Amino acid sequence: MKTNQSWGGRFAEGPKEAVAQYTDSQSYDRALYAQDIRASQAHARMLGRQGVISQNEARILVNGLDRVREEIEAGNFVWKPELEDVHMNIEARLTELVGDVGKKLHTGRSRNDQVGLTFRLFVADRLETWRQRAALLCSVLADKAAEHKTDILPGCTHLQPAQPVSLAHHLLAYAWMFRRDAMRLEDTLERVRISPLGAAALAGTTYPLDPLSVADEVGFAEIYGNSMDAVSDRDFVLEALFDGSTIMMHLSRLCEEIILWANPAFGFVRLSDGYSTGSSIMPQKKNPDVAELMRGKTGRVYGALTGLLTVMKGLPLAYNRDMQEDKEGFLDADRTVEASLRLMAGMLEELTFRTDRMREACKAGFLNATELADYLVGKGIPFREAHHITGQAVAMAEKAGKGLEDLTLGELQSLEPRIDDSVFAILEYAAAVSRRETPGGTGPRSVETQLEQLHQWLGQNLGEEN
Amino acid sequence: MKTNQSWGGRFAEGPKEAVAQYTDSQSYDRALYAQDIRASQAHARMLGRQGVISQNEARILVNGLDRVREEIEAGNFVWKPELEDVHMNIEARLTELVGDVGKKLHTGRSRNDQVGLTFRLFVADRLETWRQRAALLCSVLADKAAEHKTDILPGCTHLQPAQPVSLAHHLLAYAWMFRRDAMRLEDTLERVRISPLGAAALAGTTYPLDPLSVADEVGFAEIYGNSMDAVSDRDFVLEALFDGSTIMMHLSRLCEEIILWANPAFGFVRLSDGYSTGSSIMPQKKNPDVAELMRGKTGRVYGALTGLLTVMKGLPLAYNRDMQEDKEGFLDADRTVEASLRLMAGMLEELTFRTDRMREACKAGFLNATELADYLVGKGIPFREAHHITGQAVAMAEKAGKGLEDLTLGELQSLEPRIDDSVFAILEYAAAVSRRETPGGTGPRSVETQLEQLHQWLGQNLGEEN
Amino acid sequence: MKTNQSWGGRFAEGPKEAVAQYTDSQSYDRALYAQDIRASQAHARMLGRQGVISQNEARILVNGLDRVREEIEAGNFVWKPELEDVHMNIEARLTELVGDVGKKLHTGRSRNDQVGLTFRLFVADRLETWRQRAALLCSVLADKAAEHKTDILPGCTHLQPAQPVSLAHHLLAYAWMFRRDAMRLEDTLERVRISPLGAAALAGTTYPLDPLSVADEVGFAEIYGNSMDAVSDRDFVLEALFDGSTIMMHLSRLCEEIILWANPAFGFVRLSDGYSTGSSIMPQKKNPDVAELMRGKTGRVYGALTGLLTVMKGLPLAYNRDMQEDKEGFLDADRTVEASLRLMAGMLEELTFRTDRMREACKAGFLNATELADYLVGKGIPFREAHHITGQAVAMAEKAGKGLEDLTLGELQSLEPRIDDSVFAILEYAAAVSRRETPGGTGPRSVETQLEQLHQWLGQNLGEEN
Amino acid sequence: MKTNQSWGGRFAEGPKEAVAQYTDSQSYDRALYAQDIRASQAHARMLGRQGVISQNEARILVNGLDRVREEIEAGNFVWKPELEDVHMNIEARLTELVGDVGKKLHTGRSRNDQVGLTFRLFVADRLETWRQRAALLCSVLADKAAEHKTDILPGCTHLQPAQPVSLAHHLLAYAWMFRRDAMRLEDTLERVRISPLGAAALAGTTYPLDPLSVADEVGFAEIYGNSMDAVSDRDFVLEALFDGSTIMMHLSRLCEEIILWANPAFGFVRLSDGYSTGSSIMPQKKNPDVAELMRGKTGRVYGALTGLLTVMKGLPLAYNRDMQEDKEGFLDADRTVEASLRLMAGMLEELTFRTDRMREACKAGFLNATELADYLVGKGIPFREAHHITGQAVAMAEKAGKGLEDLTLGELQSLEPRIDDSVFAILEYAAAVSRRETPGGTGPRSVETQLEQLHQWLGQNLGEEN
Repeated sequence: MKTNQSWGGRFAEGPKEAVAQYTDSQSYDRALYAQDIRASQAHARMLGRQGVISQNEARILVNGLDRVREEIEAGNFVWKPELEDVHMNIEARLTELVGDVGKKLHTGRSRNDQVGLTFRLFVADRLETWRQRAALLCSVLADKAAEHKTDILPGCTHLQPAQPVSLAHHLLAYAWMFRRDAMRLEDTLERVRISPLGAAALAGTTYPLDPLSVADEVGFAEIYGNSMDAVSDRDFVLEALFDGSTIMMHLSRLCEEIILWANPAFGFVRLSDGYSTGSSIMPQKKNPDVAELMRGKTGRVYGALTGLLTVMKGLPLAYNRDMQEDKEGFLDADRTVEASLRLMAGMLEELTFRTDRMREACKAGFLNATELADYLVGKGIPFREAHHITGQAVAMAEKAGKGLEDLTLGELQSLEPRIDDSVFAILEYAAAVSRRETPGGTGPRSVETQLEQLHQWLGQNLGEEN
Repeated sequence: MKTNQSWGGRFAEGPKEAVAQYTDSQSYDRALYAQDIRASQAHARMLGRQGVISQNEARILVNGLDRVREEIEAGNFVWKPELEDVHMNIEARLTELVGDVGKKLHTGRSRNDQVGLTFRLFVADRLETWRQRAALLCSVLADKAAEHKTDILPGCTHLQPAQPVSLAHHLLAYAWMFRRDAMRLEDTLERVRISPLGAAALAGTTYPLDPLSVADEVGFAEIYGNSMDAVSDRDFVLEALFDGSTIMMHLSRLCEEIILWANPAFGFVRLSDGYSTGSSIMPQKKNPDVAELMRGKTGRVYGALTGLLTVMKGLPLAYNRDMQEDKEGFLDADRTVEASLRLMAGMLEELTFRTDRMREACKAGFLNATELADYLVGKGIPFREAHHITGQAVAMAEKAGKGLEDLTLGELQSLEPRIDDSVFAILEYAAAVSRRETPGGTGPRSVETQLEQLHQWLGQNLGEEN
Repeated sequence: MKTNQSWGGRFAEGPKEAVAQYTDSQSYDRALYAQDIRASQAHARMLGRQGVISQNEARILVNGLDRVREEIEAGNFVWKPELEDVHMNIEARLTELVGDVGKKLHTGRSRNDQVGLTFRLFVADRLETWRQRAALLCSVLADKAAEHKTDILPGCTHLQPAQPVSLAHHLLAYAWMFRRDAMRLEDTLERVRISPLGAAALAGTTYPLDPLSVADEVGFAEIYGNSMDAVSDRDFVLEALFDGSTIMMHLSRLCEEIILWANPAFGFVRLSDGYSTGSSIMPQKKNPDVAELMRGKTGRVYGALTGLLTVMKGLPLAYNRDMQEDKEGFLDADRTVEASLRLMAGMLEELTFRTDRMREACKAGFLNATELADYLVGKGIPFREAHHITGQAVAMAEKAGKGLEDLTLGELQSLEPRIDDSVFAILEYAAAVSRRETPGGTGPRSVETQLEQLHQWLGQNLGEEN
Repeated sequence: MKTNQSWGGRFAEGPKEAVAQYTDSQSYDRALYAQDIRASQAHARMLGRQGVISQNEARILVNGLDRVREEIEAGNFVWKPELEDVHMNIEARLTELVGDVGKKLHTGRSRNDQVGLTFRLFVADRLETWRQRAALLCSVLADKAAEHKTDILPGCTHLQPAQPVSLAHHLLAYAWMFRRDAMRLEDTLERVRISPLGAAALAGTTYPLDPLSVADEVGFAEIYGNSMDAVSDRDFVLEALFDGSTIMMHLSRLCEEIILWANPAFGFVRLSDGYSTGSSIMPQKKNPDVAELMRGKTGRVYGALTGLLTVMKGLPLAYNRDMQEDKEGFLDADRTVEASLRLMAGMLEELTFRTDRMREACKAGFLNATELADYLVGKGIPFREAHHITGQAVAMAEKAGKGLEDLTLGELQSLEPRIDDSVFAILEYAAAVSRRETPGGTGPRSVETQLEQLHQWLGQNLGEEN
């Protein structure tokens, strides 16, 4: 075996290329170009205001950065891997464009605080988008609910039919989840929108900077409290990944129901062609691929969270290169979360609810058994006995292959003579739903209130653009 | 092979016992007894106010529950595994004590919303304790920092000496982390303190309940929006576990530094006997066991988070028995997080900083190299040349086994004649620290400001009892 | 604020107790007593053989350890928390029983290699039990399959009916999973059964030990290769937790199907009372609690794996106290995995398959559509056209609310005159199953072969005791 | 709000594009082209042998697939996103090249078993590469160890100096870890190399296939036992990700040590320029970036494992689209694991050990204290007293700022007159190392044996190409 054996054999690249590839970030952190430029322009203006550079130099830098952005957006920018990251690529091009003054941009900052601010701006932008997507999904659910206030289906616990609920109520359960997600994102955004600029490498700098004005200019209300914490804090990414995990978990639950409901045994929904795939062999088949993939992609976002929690464990102060691993996980999670929220909204809009099948399924579950027992109690029969009689009625109906409401009055009276024909109104599934009017209950007035509450919140939270 | 083979062989228990053991929760959810009783008393009073039961019955229930609590706290309560959980155990005992009226306690609620409220009360209590422990730890760090404002040590990036920082500044970096943890807990508490009572099994109830007054009585400001969401939402536990994971991650970083610093190569700290263990053989040995275990226990809390995220993925509405798995993970994480915060505070209080070793270490890292380069630039030497001269000075000092500040003026002038004896003031490590007075920087005034900010926050957040 | 504030307030315990509690392991590692004693006896005999202690001393130690075990098993042993762990408790009691010679037991070993061997013995014992439980479950599945060779149900992909399969075939898919789990455990056991004794603290010892004979005596074939690796390797626990995670994942899939099938929309199974719970209100309800909890407990085992992976990341050589965290996670996972395998076997034994409902469900899915298309191709009709005609037939049947096989010959011929009455044999669902006789296919001969393969493997792998 | 609102606003793409992008796999599964073609060629030949297609058709397909591969490798292949995945892209191009016979390639198989075999071939190829990289790294460690048999450094437990060990021994601890990783991969490969072809969609097929011969032709020894398991088993990917996680965990430990050792407080290693980065400001700085990033990337691979475990939880039989998520996680983990193993080998080869600093560090840790105590016991002094005297000697030396071996005979005799000048040979650190010759110990003969064992294994396991 010879020296440098590990580079022998089939590897074309030598160690230098391999290290460059291993440590590279420009291939993915390009996604942050707009935020890097926004942060740099704010920094340049502040340097000018503070007299660290002249006002004219500041103007040259700001304009130069505008040109760099234009080049990138026009697709004319040449990314150079040897310049390692988005920051160096932009600065190098700036210097080409404006000359040596370009080098002054980095005065009073280091890569550590620059990366921090850029990434915080990026995460803030993305979380705001998630927040709006979550609100939009909430709004689609509310719209669908409004169409199905009187349609009922078996409400399940343990995936066993328990009590009838309205389809509106069932859908709104998810609306509340996504509203909660949106609100959690708001809290997180408070902690994302803190500027670390001014922390420099780790200890602060000797330049007379004004970090608060930079924060203000990029739309952040606060600056960091301690420079060592500032450059080594990745809590904001962890929190974003946790929020994304919770969103995906909620989506996975809704996906599970759509997948179940699309199975012919339930037959509660019909998927639109756009969100399902057929089979070249079996004409009867319509697979809920989008819902399945979305459920699966939950694992991906959980994985990104687990990954970054692992990265951060046990790292001493201050910046360590391990922290570079914060970006790819977030970028991947962002693509997944944003697209999933968007696609779920689209899928729901095109979903057809087969409310006849839902109503039919109520029978199979004897979902009005509780109502019959309550009726008997109302007739003065002790609860224990009422429960027993109901059990007999269920057995009788099951044997005959029908619902309780399909038994004749005679059949019912054979079990308990005090039953009269007022029982049939009670056995209506819809009536059972109507009687549950506690706050947040499935009763129509409760559902109406829920819709009002959600619309009020949506009114304040749905962006113009939607 | 015969029927029931899987129960043959060495298992004494039959299937019935095995199932009971597998599904049991009373062995651990006893921890929630106080919260269950608090919730039940609020529920009983509301039932009385609403006329669902009589005021007198309500009084009997409330008093009976007081007696049950007293029995539990006196250790006289007999827990019955066959009653499955804490809720059934308490209700059964209540009925023994007050007679059949005890059975009325469960009117208008189901196990699903009862468990929800009880557990939310418990989690809220524990998170409030975490919050106070985090604030207390923050305060210990601030106290220690106040003692070490002028002591300096090498500030590292990449675990390589970078620039000198004050020990105060280094410690305060952690104070800010735990402050952030405390603030994150506050946000989480907003989402924990929402009462699900009134949701009943899943659909609301037909009783004329007043859920908001129950919430109010147990100290919660809000009630759930949708009953199906109410009984199947475990976001609040996930969020608590995430907050705990972040706390442990921060602690693990501090532990890592303590472990490093206790190694004789650094020798920056001396652990008290209470927080370390010796060796019966090697008298020189003092192991930082508490710090190591705490770093390790981080994995445990991460595991609880991963576990519950997994549980919740893909569950259809509403309650599923899988959700019972939310409790043991949180109970374990709670013990770990609370004890870790507490022990870290205690360990720091008894930690001795060897500031002489810290100061000495600054030399080995040539931490004043940046200052020399800046000095040369001040003398009108272009930066590139200044950097080159500094490199030569470092090489010269390294060869002689001393710091830059130990070079003679003659030696320095041999490299660059413009250097005069004002350079030695510049090379003072403490001076380098003093010059970094940007907000949040390591300079003494910046540190002073940090202390003021933290004390102000602590003043509002440290509970009386501490 | 005063000194030692963090111990003030409501904590009764002082720092000493808190540290003791935090670092304690005897409360849970007692579970390893039998393995500790087995390892110590082997060590003592070896010390005697090697002349490090006298043969008589060795005998005294071995007999004394027998007495300690008897005390523990009789419930007479007094565990002392202040002795920290199971190892110290046993050694201290041994010395009480046999006098000062007891102290010689520890000659030539340290806690590090002692813990290693003890825990490896424990894990090996437990994994062997898992292996047997997995084989037993495989055998129960094979027995059930043997009863249902000719019963058919819709085989699904994407949870959409795809092609009919026999129930036997469906059940055997799981048998193969658990067989794979058992085989994976065998491989893992090879890596568990390596003795670290002789590594001492980390560097080996100066005593003339014979570690291989100790390994041999406890039933391990190998010893460690390097003492530093020996005391800091926890791969064997990680691998055990991974194997357990895979087992739970497989179980969770089977649980999911049982839960789905128990829903009346499917109605494919009827759970026995022992493995389900009813409702005091709704007589129709039978909840699959055991299956749900088992699916949920998957998260718990995943969490233990994630936790230990986190613990081990980035630990320098050799032993670090963090590693103590390997035990509780495994002990918890062990309880879960072993009980889950056992309960699943029991649950399956008592599960009733409603084969009529399964057969009926085949119709709703038009599972014989593929067969019709193939039949038409056999009649010389190009595949594309055959597929189109089949599509028309499906539409016709769907409209009439019946299966393809319920169409009349006339109806079928109206679509394609070349169809004759031989088509009805083709449309038999069972026939579709019978025709798939590729290896591992759902055809009866393929299923028979699977059963033979499994029985052959089971013959070699089911322990006597079962 | 209007219909299709969720696609309004700033999204250029409509739902169709969004769904296509969300469900797309060809952008990443192209990486599997060679394995797909290999599998298809084996399938085509088997179809020919079995008479399902003619021998001539088989030949045309095989040759056509060769041409497709050539196009791909020459960069001339046009990938079409609308063809979804690598399989469809290749089949479509094949049909363009060879005409309608191309469509016969898919006879008797479905996408489900095709994907399974292709991915298993890919994973097998990659794991074999990992295995070789792990062996190579093991060999680099052995070479380095061979150079440092007599160099000593403090062996640590709890990161506290415990006993001196040879650098060779320390490095070999890692060699044994990577050997274990390589052996674990071998076991995994047994389970990867099982062909699912013949399972078709889920139930087997009606064609007279010979799946075993296909397996044989692609180099797999076994075929699946059950077709439903065959198409829904992803254990092999999970196991690969677990193996990768363990490899990364081991690497992270070695990285941690390199990072610690590169800190000037230790100063045990000097990194080559190729594997570190400097600072434009601080000439003294050399950051161990590669080691840091590698430690960080551990989280990434853990995340991929967690992700796929999550995906697979609770999926019913057979194939579900969620399973598509197995690929990106593995592809990413593969890049990380393979590059990390390779770069660690390269980094070690260029690492300089500063053995003088290591030897010096032994003093600071009083690593010969154990030896002194043993010496005194040898002089007939009871162990307890010997330990006490040693403690005094350590205190004396510490006060004087020197090692035990630097005390004068007079000083030592002032503590215990029985000490004579033979003590100085005992206090030699190297002597302490030499005396630990138990199997796997740090003694030179033990290390020699380790090297022989490793070389023997390497001889059988290092591929030609290395």
